[in-house]
Amino acid sequence: MSLKNDRFLKALMREPVDVTPVWMMRQAGRYLPEYRATRKQAGSFLDLCKNAELACEVTMQPLRRYDFDAAILFSDILTIPDAFGQGLYFEEGEGPKFRKVIRTAADVENLPEVNIAAELEYVMNAVSVIRKELNGAVPLIGFSGSPWTLATYMIEGGGSKDFRLAKQFMYDNPEAMHLLLDKLADAVTDYLNAQIDAGAQVVQIFDTWGGILTPSCYLEFSLAYMKKIIANLTKEREGRRVPSIVFTKNGGQWLEPIVASGADGVGLDWTIDIAEAKRRAGGAVALQGNMDPTMLYASPAAIRKEVDQILASYGSGPGHVFNLGHGITPQVNPDHVSVFVDSVHELSGQYHK
Amino acid sequence: MSLKNDRFLKALMREPVDVTPVWMMRQAGRYLPEYRATRKQAGSFLDLCKNAELACEVTMQPLRRYDFDAAILFSDILTIPDAFGQGLYFEEGEGPKFRKVIRTAADVENLPEVNIAAELEYVMNAVSVIRKELNGAVPLIGFSGSPWTLATYMIEGGGSKDFRLAKQFMYDNPEAMHLLLDKLADAVTDYLNAQIDAGAQVVQIFDTWGGILTPSCYLEFSLAYMKKIIANLTKEREGRRVPSIVFTKNGGQWLEPIVASGADGVGLDWTIDIAEAKRRAGGAVALQGNMDPTMLYASPAAIRKEVDQILASYGSGPGHVFNLGHGITPQVNPDHVSVFVDSVHELSGQYHK
Repeated sequence: MSLKNDRFLKALMREPVDVTPVWMMRQAGRYLPEYRATRKQAGSFLDLCKNAELACEVTMQPLRRYDFDAAILFSDILTIPDAFGQGLYFEEGEGPKFRKVIRTAADVENLPEVNIAAELEYVMNAVSVIRKELNGAVPLIGFSGSPWTLATYMIEGGGSKDFRLAKQFMYDNPEAMHLLLDKLADAVTDYLNAQIDAGAQVVQIFDTWGGILTPSCYLEFSLAYMKKIIANLTKEREGRRVPSIVFTKNGGQWLEPIVASGADGVGLDWTIDIAEAKRRAGGAVALQGNMDPTMLYASPAAIRKEVDQILASYGSGPGHVFNLGHGITPQVNPDHVSVFVDSVHELSGQYHK
Repeated sequence: MSLKNDRFLKALMREPVDVTPVWMMRQAGRYLPEYRATRKQAGSFLDLCKNAELACEVTMQPLRRYDFDAAILFSDILTIPDAFGQGLYFEEGEGPKFRKVIRTAADVENLPEVNIAAELEYVMNAVSVIRKELNGAVPLIGFSGSPWTLATYMIEGGGSKDFRLAKQFMYDNPEAMHLLLDKLADAVTDYLNAQIDAGAQVVQIFDTWGGILTPSCYLEFSLAYMKKIIANLTKEREGRRVPSIVFTKNGGQWLEPIVASGADGVGLDWTIDIAEAKRRAGGAVALQGNMDPTMLYASPAAIRKEVDQILASYGSGPGHVFNLGHGITPQVNPDHVSVFVDSVHELSGQYHK
């Protein structure tokens, strides 16, 4: 099937485009009243993820309102630990929790052998349904949490302020931690390849918590496993390259090794100037980002000015995918998202002549 | 009065020392059972800060247990907003809160004129009492929150996950934000100079939340005001230089402008390799840091190995003050702090020959 809008794929391959493509992390989410309605209808958050039709519905909702250049599968980054039998659940307003946690080397060794594609069939079903519904309008992004990020939740049993237990495990049981990360890297690889088989045209690895590590621990316990995954991803499908994106929040200090990870695109948070990132990346990858998500609370004029500034900072030439530097937050006024998306398209043409 | 141990002051001036000096952010704190006992005796956290004798007692407690090369005034970073009439209070396990918040330009304009040294006399009393009690054993550090960090609490009314209100105010009312920061910079300057008058021999500015900004906002809304403060600090007292230290958590990407701030020392968190920081600082300042505080949950052997690695990374030559990359957390085993402190002293001699 041919794509009606392939700007996003082209930008990721650093090919010329007419205007800079844009999507938004967590674009299907609580800031949209129609999302909140569907979520209510589904029951729990996980019920929503597991219902292919409703997951498709919330994936499509932002595309009906805004001129996004990509859709992203509606799911959670923690489906893999759940598939390993950790018992994922969500308490209202509390974030994710696990009924079982990893605390010892034996816990890691005793993790079951899991056929991820079979265990997470509901995700692949959602991918298929969404691809059909998209009907070639824009490409579909599949995704997973990074092994390190998944490991932190599996050890802590949920979110954390200081990741004390995960880091203690890493510092005191590096071999067991490596075994856990290796199992997770295999699972993520199978998971993303199954999503690609089901129709995902781009995949992104969310390394939400890599940035809390020291530089050497980041390379050893987070980036190394993302590299391994990228090396084993399906590279072509339907006669097209399937680009991969890595996003380490707070990873700006380690941009060079991230650029060398083998990914086609690198996500940036807002703590780095994208001009500096472009210089340091040296044209080896596309860059995705990087407006402060909190900017969406500012006035439309301030949003437009900031978009203009980031576009000017990236400057001429291909290889820029506009995005926020992290996910959109629930209290944003949906009208401000229009300003954001339209500003990117309206102001970026001059850099693509 | 002559100092029995002036390693810390010498290291901040990049003068030769016998071994690397070490202290710990939040070294007087909840990880110590004797602190918890005094805290209980005092009543609330603020009662403890406001009682010079008890504040002195908790300041001295870690020095009785450990071979620290500096004492730090026991106080809170939010005394200044409290002096401005914002009504600081602490809810058990909840972090700081304010009864009044800043939400409009008028709120900023209506902030009262405050004589900080008079309003916060209880802090100066604590400094005097501690200096007397220290009796020249080690230097005493005074401190303040940075203007930006204070402003975030004053606007949010407490801590925050995304600093939405503070950033919205900054993006939509930059002039009012600058007025607020200017008032706070004047107050911090008066506050630190009053602490120096009362006996503080070093001062540190804690920019806990500068790292959540974009690069250009960091320079404009946080660093600029710290520079202004540093330029107006008392530089000499009792015939000695009074060194200043700036610490921006997550500021590694902006090390060069921080190094050029005029401070004698720059605090580093653990997300930067101290060898790289030393190279980028080019000998212009002393560097303070930078072990991951979570490492104190690891085994004694792992702690000692990490200290060794950081010392080796800094390598030979003066200008290193060992510290954690952020404050110690409450659940740490006090015995692990001995391992940390003693390892720094025992393993660092080779780099000072």
